[in-house]
Amino acid sequence: MKRLDTAQPDFRAGFASLLADRDSDTARVDGPVTEILAAVRARGDDALCEFTNRFDRADVTPATLRITPQEVETACAQVPAALLDALETAATRIESFHRAQMPSDMRYVDDAGVTLGMRWTALDSVGLYVPGGKAAYPSSVLMNAIPAHVAGVGRIAMCVPTPDGVLNPLVLAAARRAGVTEIYRVGGAQAVGAMAYGTATIAPVDRVVGPGNAYVAEAKRQVFGTVGIDSIAGPSEVVVIADGNNDPRAIALDLLAQAEHDPMAQSILITPDTDMAAKVERAVATELETLPRAEIARTSWDAHGAIITVRDLNEAADLVNTIAPEHLELMIDDPAPTFRRVRHAGAIFVGRYCPEAIGDYVGGPNHVLPTSRTARFSSGLSVFDFIKRTTFIEAQPESLRKIGPAAVSLAQAEGLDAHALSVSVRLADLDRRA
Amino acid sequence: MKRLDTAQPDFRAGFASLLADRDSDTARVDGPVTEILAAVRARGDDALCEFTNRFDRADVTPATLRITPQEVETACAQVPAALLDALETAATRIESFHRAQMPSDMRYVDDAGVTLGMRWTALDSVGLYVPGGKAAYPSSVLMNAIPAHVAGVGRIAMCVPTPDGVLNPLVLAAARRAGVTEIYRVGGAQAVGAMAYGTATIAPVDRVVGPGNAYVAEAKRQVFGTVGIDSIAGPSEVVVIADGNNDPRAIALDLLAQAEHDPMAQSILITPDTDMAAKVERAVATELETLPRAEIARTSWDAHGAIITVRDLNEAADLVNTIAPEHLELMIDDPAPTFRRVRHAGAIFVGRYCPEAIGDYVGGPNHVLPTSRTARFSSGLSVFDFIKRTTFIEAQPESLRKIGPAAVSLAQAEGLDAHALSVSVRLADLDRRA
Repeated sequence: MKRLDTAQPDFRAGFASLLADRDSDTARVDGPVTEILAAVRARGDDALCEFTNRFDRADVTPATLRITPQEVETACAQVPAALLDALETAATRIESFHRAQMPSDMRYVDDAGVTLGMRWTALDSVGLYVPGGKAAYPSSVLMNAIPAHVAGVGRIAMCVPTPDGVLNPLVLAAARRAGVTEIYRVGGAQAVGAMAYGTATIAPVDRVVGPGNAYVAEAKRQVFGTVGIDSIAGPSEVVVIADGNNDPRAIALDLLAQAEHDPMAQSILITPDTDMAAKVERAVATELETLPRAEIARTSWDAHGAIITVRDLNEAADLVNTIAPEHLELMIDDPAPTFRRVRHAGAIFVGRYCPEAIGDYVGGPNHVLPTSRTARFSSGLSVFDFIKRTTFIEAQPESLRKIGPAAVSLAQAEGLDAHALSVSVRLADLDRRA
Repeated sequence: MKRLDTAQPDFRAGFASLLADRDSDTARVDGPVTEILAAVRARGDDALCEFTNRFDRADVTPATLRITPQEVETACAQVPAALLDALETAATRIESFHRAQMPSDMRYVDDAGVTLGMRWTALDSVGLYVPGGKAAYPSSVLMNAIPAHVAGVGRIAMCVPTPDGVLNPLVLAAARRAGVTEIYRVGGAQAVGAMAYGTATIAPVDRVVGPGNAYVAEAKRQVFGTVGIDSIAGPSEVVVIADGNNDPRAIALDLLAQAEHDPMAQSILITPDTDMAAKVERAVATELETLPRAEIARTSWDAHGAIITVRDLNEAADLVNTIAPEHLELMIDDPAPTFRRVRHAGAIFVGRYCPEAIGDYVGGPNHVLPTSRTARFSSGLSVFDFIKRTTFIEAQPESLRKIGPAAVSLAQAEGLDAHALSVSVRLADLDRRA
């Protein structure tokens, strides 16, 4: 864990190294992924089953790739009712937020009499990748599938690896709640390839979304263009801005909630209160003594964690804008000025009663967020990932007279004569009729 | 050119081969691009100047990479006043449409008393790639730079190669009109690398946009993640739906306006009127006799063009949804029903007086559009490319009591105990105070 202080002369260097310390290139897996994708593209289900049986120690055939409704029901029956209730609370809130997010179409007539506008349309089909094994998070199923459903996507196909044939009941319960009925027991680059190119069993989709390991991320990068993809998730991070009026244990747990995800995760406390800084540092150490995932959390905190003391909250907001964190908590008395000053963050959790874990499950906004400083230029998953815009123009004769000549001039200047003629023959026709 | 008729038994096969005929993989240039990017990343300006001098037969140094304001003024002075006026008409209309496109922030309080919302923020900086030589289109400078400007991007850097040292006056005039003052005479993968990683002379940007050749496209693919990118443009296409009440020459020119761009471009006429089909086919042949870019247009039309006769306009719209064309013209008497039925198209040009060339220059909506069937899942360039969303939640004690327990259950089920504790310690604290 790094201790930094903006008042110290070495702050800039220390802060720069904090930002850079997770920049190392991820493992290069492009070669194997290219091979897997080519095989799935060429040999479809056969290749898909071979890879699945090899990597997941499974025994699938094209006939058993799809998880049956009966299997889903059997799995869901194992989920305790209280947990199904919690899933329902989460799903309802996620649904409600994403409905509010849906944009409106636009249409207007301008001064030249031209009708202009844009229209939003849902994608026909999307493929949802869900990691298997320990990283199988039912909450992520809700966060990926519900926005697609709200956006009006007609077909949602889901791929989830089932290593050693083991189904995750809560993942299937989440899929059922989110209205996903087309589920395949495949994972890895081969699953991405199947969804992008299609096989005899799995029809191709228009866009592939969802988190995954390095192979899945590389596969998404390689199929980009054939299908759309969401952003490629890197290790995630939280910045907590906390003043002196906090329970240090609560702040420590917020930092550790990020750290327990992944040894590469990054948790940063920024505080104007040196006393709080020291208390939180001690509280982190105390919690690590009993936390079940202490090994992961400690590795993350030791290698990438930081406590930064600042002169004031404006300075804190400015640091946040350089970090562009995935998650930002504002655990301060008067959060509004800091909230306004922050420009780059995936999601902001405002006030002492809104820890980031609320947003992971039941807040409503999406928990799939831009990681590794990409909040500088990208956004969390949303209904916007499942709809696209069509712009339109409608010109009447009088409007064409007004704006057409400029188009002719520019087309001629660019040496595109058919472009120019396509406008000028219509203008000439109007002149003849006039 | 293919002649297809939906009433014929071989239609499905012919239509499928029409869709597939441009699917061949683009040239593999990933090896050389990886090397160029690594060199620019490692050696900055030195590598950038070396590649520029080699590929563009130039003689630049770090000190002369940037095009000076004086050079811009000198170049602009060469542009005829009428052309500057046309540029102004285009710029004003593009600006106006993209202003109308800006979305609003959202904020509301839900039943549980939780404040929820999302906020749009502009990117700090973007890099605009502009192709050089013959493909240097001033209209593209406007279409890329103006939305960034309207979105509120603070810094817009532009890279344009100047082979043999030749500046394109109209490109510089377009940049000046669009408010772009930071312009570098570099192109290719090396320009993309410089914008993504930064050099001593060119500060890194957050997102790189703009069309380019195969090297530029591959470079954008490889820097994706370090920076954002726009979609990777493939060969473009138009579908014209025309009824019998058209001037066949106008329709032929619309088809050729697409074909004259690129031998790989695709122009498709869909008509319920077999007489019009024949007339347009003859008109295309006639125009090709005199069109300056006839060689390119003929190659495109012969290899990828098509005339499809359909039973009715509904069938036409359904074909469009499978093609998902970049551009769609509705040259029909009553366009509204067909307009409503179309789900997948980059931009729609409605009515006989709105040829697609209007949209290329002066319509207002962006002419950077999803090509090669990607309108199934993506959209044209817009202000949305230059802003991003931050979601936020603010929970009061009473709201936390309502929604917190479900978060605790789900976090425990996912084995993330610090997540669960970060909520439960706050709930316990509230209980103590109650």
